[in-house]
Amino acid sequence: MCALFGLSRPFSSAIPPPLSAMAAANLTYLTQTQAQSLDEDLMGPEVGYSVDQLMELAGLSVAQAVVAAVPLTAAVKRLTRVLVVCGPGNNGGDGLVAARHLKLFGYQVCVWYPRPTSKALFESLVKQLHNHRVQVTQEAPADLAEFELVVDCIFGFSFRGALRPPFDSVLRTLKAANIPVLSVDIPSGWDVEQGNVTGDGLEPQYLISLTAPKLCAKYFGGVHFVGGRFVPASMIEKYNLVLPEYPGIQEIVRIG
Amino acid sequence: MCALFGLSRPFSSAIPPPLSAMAAANLTYLTQTQAQSLDEDLMGPEVGYSVDQLMELAGLSVAQAVVAAVPLTAAVKRLTRVLVVCGPGNNGGDGLVAARHLKLFGYQVCVWYPRPTSKALFESLVKQLHNHRVQVTQEAPADLAEFELVVDCIFGFSFRGALRPPFDSVLRTLKAANIPVLSVDIPSGWDVEQGNVTGDGLEPQYLISLTAPKLCAKYFGGVHFVGGRFVPASMIEKYNLVLPEYPGIQEIVRIG
Repeated sequence: MCALFGLSRPFSSAIPPPLSAMAAANLTYLTQTQAQSLDEDLMGPEVGYSVDQLMELAGLSVAQAVVAAVPLTAAVKRLTRVLVVCGPGNNGGDGLVAARHLKLFGYQVCVWYPRPTSKALFESLVKQLHNHRVQVTQEAPADLAEFELVVDCIFGFSFRGALRPPFDSVLRTLKAANIPVLSVDIPSGWDVEQGNVTGDGLEPQYLISLTAPKLCAKYFGGVHFVGGRFVPASMIEKYNLVLPEYPGIQEIVRIG
Repeated sequence: MCALFGLSRPFSSAIPPPLSAMAAANLTYLTQTQAQSLDEDLMGPEVGYSVDQLMELAGLSVAQAVVAAVPLTAAVKRLTRVLVVCGPGNNGGDGLVAARHLKLFGYQVCVWYPRPTSKALFESLVKQLHNHRVQVTQEAPADLAEFELVVDCIFGFSFRGALRPPFDSVLRTLKAANIPVLSVDIPSGWDVEQGNVTGDGLEPQYLISLTAPKLCAKYFGGVHFVGGRFVPASMIEKYNLVLPEYPGIQEIVRIG
């Protein structure tokens, strides 16, 4: 009867099978320079997206990836605590949005935001979280063991060089806590193209690449989603992108 | 196996059953003044949403309501043409966003935008549609009969008084075309509280109320959705709102 978006099957076996190996192998993996250029184009005068729009959709896709990783059942809603760790840049902004959608989906959510960004958009995103009764804290949560999943929104495709305080310590704390991690765009601490070259990066179980995977994702062996269902035909043509096909109304697609 | 968001049942029986009559009867129906005040609060200094954010989520929920009205099958993607008719205000903006998401879902979409708004956000939304290869036209499409569904984004909760050109003529054209209509927020031409008092308003088969139904929805007898899954706890408390519970990851819920 009621099959709209799978209402009759409430996310009981959540993780869908990935694309075939052949389909996945043909997808575009971006260099750091390409990722930056595509991002600038999306928000440039030709395409005309605002950062608010893209961040909203990226954050929503991150929240949907969490649902795929931790199925949304009544018990999960009651018991699961998700920790969203946000960095100082747009990757952190995606996390602030994702935390709000997760709360709306019914999860218990806490945001660890060690170094809040003083831009108007980021301050507004935090204000929204307060209105939704989501806790946002600069300090590490007292008991990390109470969380079932960490959403790693610390660094994105702009990351370069060495880990600096306080994020070197944040990453050490998360690694020591040994909780499953879903990384957003790239696993934090990884070189965008070369992977976990220093060994100090997180080793997530799940990854959601935004718009298209970055080259470092070739070194990732876990469950891999793509999100950010907003790349227009004009940009697909300009960058000669091969993107996966999103099913139905989902804002994510599993590719690995 | 693959039940994430109903992937295994590709929208074949799309319209879910509504809430029980008792649950629906208890929901909040807003006056025009309440709707305006809530909207101002959502974008005011306390809550801090930008219009870009809310319009993006409202437009996405409209697109999901279209999927519920016209199931998303391979044949539908190939054959169905959806006409999104946009007015000069924020209701029209929701339509410009919805058209983009519909195109991303796979529908053939055309936007009829009789009087384009010269604000930066609206011009950007049109630019985005061009990049996604969605046709936007100021003139009535030559052959309305080729469309399977009209999405009515002409007037929202700010509508007052009599129909003025060119929208009096737009509404007459749509009524004469006799194509199924999904209205966004209110059926265009209706008094926000009293319903279709002049008889010149559209008579839609589907309605999606945004944030909460307006009083005029009491006079609507078709399939009724609520969208705009973003109202924070603070506003639910302030306005003493009774909103329906959204299932799963959906941005819409059927209430009638």
